[in-house]
Amino acid sequence: MNLLLIKPEDIISDMTIIRDKKKIAHVINVLKKTVSGDKIKIGILNSYTGTGEITYIDENKIELKVSVCENPPAPLPMKLIIAMPRPKVFRKILQHGTSLGIKEFHFMRTWKTDKSYLLSPVLEEKKIYKDLITGLEQAKDTILPSVFIHPLFKPFVEDKLPAISMNTLRIAAHPGEKEFIFKKENSAYTIAIGPEGGFTDYEIKLLETVGFIPACFGQRILRVETALPFIAGRLFHTNDMQ
Amino acid sequence: MNLLLIKPEDIISDMTIIRDKKKIAHVINVLKKTVSGDKIKIGILNSYTGTGEITYIDENKIELKVSVCENPPAPLPMKLIIAMPRPKVFRKILQHGTSLGIKEFHFMRTWKTDKSYLLSPVLEEKKIYKDLITGLEQAKDTILPSVFIHPLFKPFVEDKLPAISMNTLRIAAHPGEKEFIFKKENSAYTIAIGPEGGFTDYEIKLLETVGFIPACFGQRILRVETALPFIAGRLFHTNDMQ
Repeated sequence: MNLLLIKPEDIISDMTIIRDKKKIAHVINVLKKTVSGDKIKIGILNSYTGTGEITYIDENKIELKVSVCENPPAPLPMKLIIAMPRPKVFRKILQHGTSLGIKEFHFMRTWKTDKSYLLSPVLEEKKIYKDLITGLEQAKDTILPSVFIHPLFKPFVEDKLPAISMNTLRIAAHPGEKEFIFKKENSAYTIAIGPEGGFTDYEIKLLETVGFIPACFGQRILRVETALPFIAGRLFHTNDMQ
Repeated sequence: MNLLLIKPEDIISDMTIIRDKKKIAHVINVLKKTVSGDKIKIGILNSYTGTGEITYIDENKIELKVSVCENPPAPLPMKLIIAMPRPKVFRKILQHGTSLGIKEFHFMRTWKTDKSYLLSPVLEEKKIYKDLITGLEQAKDTILPSVFIHPLFKPFVEDKLPAISMNTLRIAAHPGEKEFIFKKENSAYTIAIGPEGGFTDYEIKLLETVGFIPACFGQRILRVETALPFIAGRLFHTNDMQ
């Protein structure tokens, strides 16, 4: 946790109170902030970041004077379309993807997706929210991403994906295809990542009909949790694009 | 497992026998290869990749006719210098780093490294070997990386790191520094990654004396297991470099 996220409704005038035991323990034991006057990095959910000055602290309660005026880091201009992975990996994709700056996640069912993955308790709204917050607090971000689950591949791709991916370069990551060529003029992407074992030929063809270009990102087959930051790193070079 | 790695000494003329129950289960249940004549992707440790044709298969034994003549994927021209992380993350760095193509890992102790991390059982040679094999089999690679553990920061940086990083561009990943600028003429890198909480000022200065440039890779603070593939993706663009 590199930033403490606070909900706007928890701030009264410029004061807020933290009662979450885990967060309090983190502030005291990891950040080593233990006395009034100590400052911690905070963010207001979906708003600015800044500083919280401790005005009271014990193991049950922290009172903070809130002062925020900095923008959170820029989002990653990349929408993620991804085959629903197994529950453990789903959580990693949410946490790591959020820390990378992804603001729109679309999980879809594909031919090789295990049916049970769509019934996992990790898909509960509250649990998803928690994983997103973890990712935001890691990256000092405040802007909550949106997460969508699409249980049917064909209607999702045909009816929703064209609008979702409008005005972006559409790439379907597919091992064995031609290597992706980075071009500076592309400023936003929609990236589709298949399940372990890849998209079927039918799925790739359907993605092509709505404008996706199949491409690989290097010769190596990576686990999806490794592939995601690797692709994000490969697409975006702020310096190159200046 | 996208490739079955076989030790050269386990091949007699062009035949080999698999007796590892886990690997047999994977071939039968995941790859769905169940009859003689079926083929699986194989690699010879530190050598070529190719095809194994099943000549006998049951739940205790697979006999394969070996035919190999393809090169494994190119290594990633990046040596990794990294603060020893907690055991779970250590294993991820080995597995994910190996699948990304890293061939030299140097884990070092830093000021903020928990002492207990250097005594963890995950550091046993046999366990490290297993994690490296997992990474290789994921990426269809065969070339076993080298892993070094350096329990003292100063003598490692002063006496060993100059030779280790010779003829590479040396970058110390450090949040808050100037953003790294990708240049096409650099073909090999040594990347130093600090512990959670970062390098100390003293450590960064010592790294600078042996030629490391402190730089950040974007505004966001990422977990080390996310940062590693992100940096690898950011540095290497085979198409750009052609």
